[in-house]
Amino acid sequence: MIRFVVAGHRATASGDFKLDDIAGGAGRLDVLVRCVNSSFFLSHSIRTDVELYLVLQGGPEAPKTVRFSGSELRYLNPDERSTASLIRNALLKKVKDGEVRSSPGVYVSKRSFFDIIDHLRDTTIVYLKEDGTDVREMAFPEDVTFILGDDRDLTPDEEEAVMACGPSKICLGPISLHADHCMIVVLNEVDRRRII
Amino acid sequence: MIRFVVAGHRATASGDFKLDDIAGGAGRLDVLVRCVNSSFFLSHSIRTDVELYLVLQGGPEAPKTVRFSGSELRYLNPDERSTASLIRNALLKKVKDGEVRSSPGVYVSKRSFFDIIDHLRDTTIVYLKEDGTDVREMAFPEDVTFILGDDRDLTPDEEEAVMACGPSKICLGPISLHADHCMIVVLNEVDRRRII
Repeated sequence: MIRFVVAGHRATASGDFKLDDIAGGAGRLDVLVRCVNSSFFLSHSIRTDVELYLVLQGGPEAPKTVRFSGSELRYLNPDERSTASLIRNALLKKVKDGEVRSSPGVYVSKRSFFDIIDHLRDTTIVYLKEDGTDVREMAFPEDVTFILGDDRDLTPDEEEAVMACGPSKICLGPISLHADHCMIVVLNEVDRRRII
Repeated sequence: MIRFVVAGHRATASGDFKLDDIAGGAGRLDVLVRCVNSSFFLSHSIRTDVELYLVLQGGPEAPKTVRFSGSELRYLNPDERSTASLIRNALLKKVKDGEVRSSPGVYVSKRSFFDIIDHLRDTTIVYLKEDGTDVREMAFPEDVTFILGDDRDLTPDEEEAVMACGPSKICLGPISLHADHCMIVVLNEVDRRRII
């Protein structure tokens, strides 16, 4: 299983945003939406062995985590608007403890970034950082979790929580990329190791 | 200069589509819009050494080509809706012969896929194909043009025009990817060769 955790620092955790304004009023939710596309789409299928945690930390209902599970996903299209709609539907669900299923493969919970890191601490944690080892030299374990910020780096508190897991630090190349582009490079490397 | 040419097989060449429906009514224009994002965005800047040709072949005004020039680009944001708006503005321009500038770095012309291939035939043409040589073994010339289909492969006629240029055939990994994802993998390889 390949997992990605993306910290959405301002992305709204309430479902009252307009689909026309996901880059503005929804707190750069567009960044997270593109991470969904990168995580799952292949030319003719969906990556069933990927799981994505989007942690939404903006607005009065924050934090919430929307989890996408590739093996169960349905109704996912590659365009931003329809994916934002899936996320909005999840955020409109009433949530107390635990996860609630919003649509096939899409779940929502009140978990914070720190809750998610704690939940995944027994997997191999990989922190994507410019000063890390080249991804091409990385040994890919079967059960790996990549941690990314959205359009902003992790906060000092978030970074501290990640570093407490003793992560591998991995870089992807000589130039800093958007989160969704980082995921494409990571997955290309995964594909090459597995050569199906 | 790194150039990408993307054949938009059904993408509408007229500007009368709705920004809410770029994946439907605009003939999968969403695919081309994501190619714009992939071509130009870095974490903190724009790729000034990239040029992108989107060839729109859908609807009664087809064909048209919208060209994005990284060195001149302004008003480009990463979300699909705002990029679709830039393309729509270009398609609403009156065009006769030659190119018309729509906004800084965005140009529109009535050129077809075949016109564009002919225009670029003196650059090194690279055709992204599953049966090609691994991109990691490719020698990157300074002046290179990568040819891609949108969500559909090139037609036999398009492929014939490309093959007449004696292109390199390059593959990116063991799994077939969306066009915009292919571009990310190509650019990561370019970045690594240049190591800035």
